[in-house]
Amino acid sequence: MRTARPCARRRCVPRLAAVRYVYAVHPIQAVRWASDRNAVRIIDQTVLPARFVERDLETLDEVCTAIATLAVRGAPAIGIAGAMGLVASLASFGDDTLDALRARTAVHAHRIVQTRPTAANLAWAVNAVAAVATVPAASPADALAAMRAKATALLADDIAMCDRIGALGVSLLADGARVLTHCNAGALATTGIGTALAPIYVAAERGLRVSVLACETRPLLQGARLTAWELSRSGVPVRVITDGSAANAMREGRVDLVIVGADRIAANGDVANKIGTYALAIAARHHGIPFYVAAPWSTFDPAVATGAGIPIEQRGRDEVAHVAGRAIVPNEVPVDNPAFDVTPASLITAIVSDRAVHRPPYRFCAP
Amino acid sequence: MRTARPCARRRCVPRLAAVRYVYAVHPIQAVRWASDRNAVRIIDQTVLPARFVERDLETLDEVCTAIATLAVRGAPAIGIAGAMGLVASLASFGDDTLDALRARTAVHAHRIVQTRPTAANLAWAVNAVAAVATVPAASPADALAAMRAKATALLADDIAMCDRIGALGVSLLADGARVLTHCNAGALATTGIGTALAPIYVAAERGLRVSVLACETRPLLQGARLTAWELSRSGVPVRVITDGSAANAMREGRVDLVIVGADRIAANGDVANKIGTYALAIAARHHGIPFYVAAPWSTFDPAVATGAGIPIEQRGRDEVAHVAGRAIVPNEVPVDNPAFDVTPASLITAIVSDRAVHRPPYRFCAP
Repeated sequence: MRTARPCARRRCVPRLAAVRYVYAVHPIQAVRWASDRNAVRIIDQTVLPARFVERDLETLDEVCTAIATLAVRGAPAIGIAGAMGLVASLASFGDDTLDALRARTAVHAHRIVQTRPTAANLAWAVNAVAAVATVPAASPADALAAMRAKATALLADDIAMCDRIGALGVSLLADGARVLTHCNAGALATTGIGTALAPIYVAAERGLRVSVLACETRPLLQGARLTAWELSRSGVPVRVITDGSAANAMREGRVDLVIVGADRIAANGDVANKIGTYALAIAARHHGIPFYVAAPWSTFDPAVATGAGIPIEQRGRDEVAHVAGRAIVPNEVPVDNPAFDVTPASLITAIVSDRAVHRPPYRFCAP
Repeated sequence: MRTARPCARRRCVPRLAAVRYVYAVHPIQAVRWASDRNAVRIIDQTVLPARFVERDLETLDEVCTAIATLAVRGAPAIGIAGAMGLVASLASFGDDTLDALRARTAVHAHRIVQTRPTAANLAWAVNAVAAVATVPAASPADALAAMRAKATALLADDIAMCDRIGALGVSLLADGARVLTHCNAGALATTGIGTALAPIYVAAERGLRVSVLACETRPLLQGARLTAWELSRSGVPVRVITDGSAANAMREGRVDLVIVGADRIAANGDVANKIGTYALAIAARHHGIPFYVAAPWSTFDPAVATGAGIPIEQRGRDEVAHVAGRAIVPNEVPVDNPAFDVTPASLITAIVSDRAVHRPPYRFCAP
């Protein structure tokens, strides 16, 4: 018996209900409601690519641990997982009084936000759901239902954001396009089809033959581990290369365009993204290859005039000096480990947001 | 009691005798005679940087295994280790007749050369020593002594080659120079002070304050494991960075020049070197930073007109897909693993050989 498959091309995103995914090409859902109970089902990214494991987060501890250990990662995915996780962590307290539930909501929200205190998306999404608890409700059960509805709406919004980036960005891809990307700005970093990878999934969905070269992305290897995994699982041809060999691949004529994500975009179009992005932008320019950035509008920060105003997080030594538990750098030798670099707007052909394909000169203003 | 230290600046390289190293800054000898017997003492590079282990190679099996397992690596070092190893492997056969010794020499030489059949330096050096066995000799002991003398002469030549590159290349380094390098073209790759690192050691010996950013050099991490180790051990300040962050370091104004080695240099100055070199050359040009290559004259191949004529070895999947025994790429995803890339002469500021500092336009002819 075959059931009807609604919306072969577009997702049905009913608000206030479980979100259904109907993409043929893209079967991954990094964060979703477990169908049978009040739990957040995530793909555990700490064991990829060796194993595909989904975990259900039901308690406050489970939610906090999943976020802290990067079992769920990527700014959009973290925000939604935290918001949904707040609801899940409260589900067993339906017998509380309304006042007790509200107090507990504040405590849980605070603890979830503190798992990654610099993640702006996480605080924003968790607090948006927590705020629902403060409005008048007939009962604790009603308040919980309203919070779940809010979290589900955020999830739907995130999925729709990805879809819009995909629909806008697919215009950049010709049939046969060979795309180079960096890090993971894909389905595993969002609750939808990703940002940098969204145009690729939409292109594949439309029957275009696209293929991807994924830079492995040292030090944490998100390209090798995650981008390769999700594209391969979705049937999109993908090869992994070392970061240092990307320029050589361009010279060999094996790259038609570059698409990467962004962590923050300044008013002038300078883009902070995973370390290694800037080197790719220089190499792309050297070879006359278009270099695109794809990111949600929430990534744009018009309050920052240029990339020089974006603070760059310096991360710990071990991420570079150890791989799979083995020391690859002598103990006495220091390492540099900036999380991001800044690619100047002058090297960026276009920026795809969920609002538009933005072309230079870039002048991003507050909404 | 202090003993006199001859030649504080230059090495004493007496031919036909054990070679003495008297550098203050550079105490590493990747390949040398064990002082007390007919054995080749090597630094075992398979256990660096975790442990510093020297091994004495005395039998044919020990010599072949050391070369095959990359316990000794780098074209110049392999050649000398093979030549000296041939002598060591024959030392216990002094009771042979001259004819038997000659036959045994041919057999041993063939087996050593076959450990890395594409290493031109290895075949050349081993065969040069084996040829000595064919000339008239008063006794097997005399023939062995003549072979040892030849191997020692090759060792001395290699050390002198490194010294000349250092002496010529140091002119490129100002006091305070911050050098970026890639892979390991240092003391561990030669029997002397290296090629790309030779100018740095000479500068340090002369009291110039030089420091190094070492690209880790995926996939095999020679920069992180070996360059960082030997520079640190010699007291030269060194930091390790990921390959993808080199361009960012240049943008931050932390690199004054780049020096790398070479595997083969075409007549027009195109340079094949470790994968990742080309990306560094592009980034250096983008930032107006000088990009130098340092290599022995034996690396120049005037028979090859341009880099397009240099065959590029494609190596196995596991080097990229596994790190420290752990899979970092999904099993079903292919990888690219070219050993080298080609940097066009147009991006190279100068090439330092043991003969001269060559400036463009490059036109290298047969000697």
